[in-house]
Amino acid sequence: MKKNILTIDALNVSKLDRKTVERFKEGGVTAIHLCVGIWENTRDTLSQIGDVKVFVRKNNDIVMLIDEARDIKIAEQENKLGIILGTQNTSPIENELSLVEIMSDVGIKIMQLTYNNQNLVGAGKFESNDNGLSRFGKLVVEEMNRVGMIIDLSHVGIQTSIDTIEHSKRPVAITHANPQWLYPVPRNVPKEVMTKLKENNGIIGLSPFPNMMSGSGDSIEDFVEMVAQTVEFMGINNVGIGTDLIMNRDDEFMIWANMGKWTHDRTAHKSQSKGLSANPQWPNWFSGPEDFPNLSEAMFKKGFSEKEVRAIMGENWLDFFEMSFKQE
Amino acid sequence: MKKNILTIDALNVSKLDRKTVERFKEGGVTAIHLCVGIWENTRDTLSQIGDVKVFVRKNNDIVMLIDEARDIKIAEQENKLGIILGTQNTSPIENELSLVEIMSDVGIKIMQLTYNNQNLVGAGKFESNDNGLSRFGKLVVEEMNRVGMIIDLSHVGIQTSIDTIEHSKRPVAITHANPQWLYPVPRNVPKEVMTKLKENNGIIGLSPFPNMMSGSGDSIEDFVEMVAQTVEFMGINNVGIGTDLIMNRDDEFMIWANMGKWTHDRTAHKSQSKGLSANPQWPNWFSGPEDFPNLSEAMFKKGFSEKEVRAIMGENWLDFFEMSFKQE
Repeated sequence: MKKNILTIDALNVSKLDRKTVERFKEGGVTAIHLCVGIWENTRDTLSQIGDVKVFVRKNNDIVMLIDEARDIKIAEQENKLGIILGTQNTSPIENELSLVEIMSDVGIKIMQLTYNNQNLVGAGKFESNDNGLSRFGKLVVEEMNRVGMIIDLSHVGIQTSIDTIEHSKRPVAITHANPQWLYPVPRNVPKEVMTKLKENNGIIGLSPFPNMMSGSGDSIEDFVEMVAQTVEFMGINNVGIGTDLIMNRDDEFMIWANMGKWTHDRTAHKSQSKGLSANPQWPNWFSGPEDFPNLSEAMFKKGFSEKEVRAIMGENWLDFFEMSFKQE
Repeated sequence: MKKNILTIDALNVSKLDRKTVERFKEGGVTAIHLCVGIWENTRDTLSQIGDVKVFVRKNNDIVMLIDEARDIKIAEQENKLGIILGTQNTSPIENELSLVEIMSDVGIKIMQLTYNNQNLVGAGKFESNDNGLSRFGKLVVEEMNRVGMIIDLSHVGIQTSIDTIEHSKRPVAITHANPQWLYPVPRNVPKEVMTKLKENNGIIGLSPFPNMMSGSGDSIEDFVEMVAQTVEFMGINNVGIGTDLIMNRDDEFMIWANMGKWTHDRTAHKSQSKGLSANPQWPNWFSGPEDFPNLSEAMFKKGFSEKEVRAIMGENWLDFFEMSFKQE
């Protein structure tokens, strides 16, 4: 018996076309946090958003933009894929505090503070040194709290993450990363940050991305074991899924995503991922969004209750969005 | 007996501070169309909007942003000045069609297609040649129609204005200009455009700005005579006030407003205004927004009924906004 389980992917870097949307729908996905910016400045981010809006308008029989959390329920009822816009960097606001609200006005619901590198706000995950949240960064956190924009710490440095959680008046998110004590790669989250996140009543989206697990060869049971251990640590309502799936993108995009324009070394990402390819082969139990039901099925097998599976597959994110998208 | 008359200024280029807002309130003004861009590109327009938003938030006891027309009634009830954001150029959208909606999302309710010069959309009022609406321009008009953004033709060339009115599915506005047959300066509106505007059920905001009347020396009776003759031509529901008042601005701003960065000739504006100063002495009967009641009083004296005075002072704009701000 296949159940309808509200499913939310808390980070997806795919380029949307009808075929890609249909793949999400095949997997029972109701909403995705869609990345519309990695290194882009203000102007280029608006272009990205503009393109998505044109796509959504022209395909409004199968897709819709999410502004409030309750829109996700509408997407579910109307059998559409809900799109939650977000960026993996604060580059869209450049050096201007007012642009946090402006980016909220144009539909950005989630913003990651830093993307691997240091920026105006703080340090990214792959910097050797992390000075924590900058002067500007503190104000950005306050402003994101005020306008109801979710703070994402997935690629953020340790000290910057800790400072952010201490400074934020609201719970924060790690939309796509795994506990580092289970899979010890730099991109994953060290226990000290997870501990802070737990105190903050924050939420983490776990990913079957091989680069954030053993690199390859992990089984679906391994993934579900990680879910179980993370739930054990964080609590049942503070864990979800965030795949980091990258569909319908070419090699140039992968180079852009990893290296932006900050380096001329096209192998720079390898130092971040233990020499792995930037977009390796995904496991056969999660080769794309069609395979979301495999995850819930494996959780049932593991002994999770239906309520628990629903929480992890989507309802925890729904509740988190409900709490987070409201302006102060 | 002083009546409370809903008053709307359809174009104001002032820099807001509390004192300036209080001056509007002293004149019984409920809402102004505030210019937040003249030559600015996308990025710089967002900065301007950001600054206004910060001001509005910090002074929300006396001022509020207008998103829907009914917000103007709220501003009236709460005795606040309502701010309707607009730009006098399509420079904020640069060369990108999707940015029309993006600018609407950040609060731009009115956009003038061209500002004196030729741009990507069409010709401005002071070009020798006017090829009419460009390929891009036609799409911009359609997109503004779609998202419910008012098309302003105040500084737009003749052929571009005619093309726009023919292409637009919605009534358009000339927020601040006078009939050229009454005051024959280039900035004013020739009869052929006024005729088109009338057919379009559009609206014009008349201005006591000396450069759009005789230059100086006009009496309030002259102004009201212009109101009467324009009403005679356009109909009582298609005429309002749009002062073009510039308060709280320094000389550098006036140079920017007139010359932008497109010329190094600091006297370039003189060829546009028959040699007049860019911001001359305003008449004693309209030296600032405190004097709006002088206009209504003079209209009563002229024999306009209360209903007619209310229409011209603000209710025509309110109705026009009500009709125009709705997305298709």
